[in-house]
Amino acid sequence: MARRLYDLCGADPARRFSPYCWRARLALAHKGLEVETVPWRFTDRAVIAAHGAEKVPVLLDGSRAVADSWAIAEYLEDSYPDRPSLFGGEGGRALAKFINGWADAVMIAGIARLVVSDIPPLLDPADRDYFVTSREKRFGMPLAQVTADRETRVVAFRESLIPLRLVLRGRPFLHGDAPAYADAIAFGPLQWARCVSAFSLLAQDDPVHAWRDRMLSAYGGIARAAPAFAGA
Amino acid sequence: MARRLYDLCGADPARRFSPYCWRARLALAHKGLEVETVPWRFTDRAVIAAHGAEKVPVLLDGSRAVADSWAIAEYLEDSYPDRPSLFGGEGGRALAKFINGWADAVMIAGIARLVVSDIPPLLDPADRDYFVTSREKRFGMPLAQVTADRETRVVAFRESLIPLRLVLRGRPFLHGDAPAYADAIAFGPLQWARCVSAFSLLAQDDPVHAWRDRMLSAYGGIARAAPAFAGA
Repeated sequence: MARRLYDLCGADPARRFSPYCWRARLALAHKGLEVETVPWRFTDRAVIAAHGAEKVPVLLDGSRAVADSWAIAEYLEDSYPDRPSLFGGEGGRALAKFINGWADAVMIAGIARLVVSDIPPLLDPADRDYFVTSREKRFGMPLAQVTADRETRVVAFRESLIPLRLVLRGRPFLHGDAPAYADAIAFGPLQWARCVSAFSLLAQDDPVHAWRDRMLSAYGGIARAAPAFAGA
Repeated sequence: MARRLYDLCGADPARRFSPYCWRARLALAHKGLEVETVPWRFTDRAVIAAHGAEKVPVLLDGSRAVADSWAIAEYLEDSYPDRPSLFGGEGGRALAKFINGWADAVMIAGIARLVVSDIPPLLDPADRDYFVTSREKRFGMPLAQVTADRETRVVAFRESLIPLRLVLRGRPFLHGDAPAYADAIAFGPLQWARCVSAFSLLAQDDPVHAWRDRMLSAYGGIARAAPAFAGA
C-alpha cells in the first residue's frame, strides 16, 4: 500500500497551504520517504474521520494512520531510525517540541492576523463558508478588519522573530549546517503565508528571509515548486 | 588550581543574581563539577579584564578562561564528555541555542521591565551609580517609571511564556524527565527575578511556576539556597 498524506488544498487542488501539512511533507522528504499527497478540503471530514482524525495532516503508512504534524514527525523518527534523523538525538527531540510551541504561538498566530483575509478567495465555495464563519468567530470581527492595519503590524511580527534571527545570523539552518525538523517547524508557517498571500512578511535583508530561501531550495526544492505568490 | 567562577553579587556578597551566572552555575552542577564562586561587582572590571572578559560569568578552569554563559556551556560539554550531557546530542545543542535567544529576548528583556527598579537598593554604592546611569540610558526614563505599571504589564509577560507552558504541561522539564541545559537557560531569568525582587512574576497555578519550583530543588537545591525574596 502506497504511503499517503492528506494535505489541505484550495479550490485549486494544487494549492497546498497548511503550515502543519508542510511540516509533515518536509519531514517525509528529510527521511527520503516517497509519499502520495492527497488533496483534502476542510469539508472533507468523513474521509479522515475514517482514520480517527479531525484535522490534517494525516499520514497513512501501511496499516498505520497518524494524525498531527508533531506525532507524524515522532512516528517517522521512531519507525525509520536508519534514515537521516529529524531531531539529532533525544535532546533535539525534546527541544524541537519547544520550538513547535513557539512557532505555533508566535508565528502561526502572528501570521494569521496578517494574511487571513487573503485565504477565502482561494477556497472552494463550501470550504469558504466554513472558513469565514469559523475564523470570524475566532477573531470576533470580519476578516478584512483583522488584517486592515497589517502594514503597521508587520513591524511587530518581524520583531517577534528575533529568536530565529539570533540563531540564523550565525549558521545557515536552525539545526546547524543542514536543515532538520526544527527548520521545517519554523518554515511551515512562512510557507503557508506565501502560498495564500502576496503580502511581504519579511524584509529582504532579514537573515530569516535568506534562511527561508534556503528552505525553499532544500529537499529538491519541493516548497519552491508549490503554487504560491512569488515575491511574497 | 581550583575551578573558579566570577559571579555577579550585590552589596551583600551572598546575593548572586545574574541570570547568565545562574545558567553557568547550573551547567557546572549538571556536570557534577565543583566550583568556587567568586563574588564580582559591575565595577570590578580589572579583575575579569585580566582574563580578556568584559562581563560575567567568567569561568577559570585550569589554565583556561571562558567568558559568556553559552560559551561556558559548550566548553563544559566538550571538555567533560564523560559527565552527564548538557544538551543530549548535537540536535539538542543546536536547538538550545534557539532557546537561549528566546529566553534572552523574551524572558530577560520582559523581566527587566518588571523588576529593574528593585535592583539598585541591593547594590554596592559604586555599582548602584553605574547601574542606574546605564539602565536609565537604555530605557530612556527613570527606573521607577519603567516598572510603574508592572501589575498591568505582568499579564502580557505571562502570556509571552506560552511556548514554555505548552511544553511544561506535558513533562516535568523542558529537556524531558530530568533537567538539562535548556532548563537552566530558561530558569536563569526567573532566578534573577526572585533574587532581586518580591514582585510575583508567575501565577501560582501556572505550570511554569511548578517547573520553577522543581528547578529550585534540582542539583541539590543550590538555587533555592540562594538569598532571594521568598514568595516572589
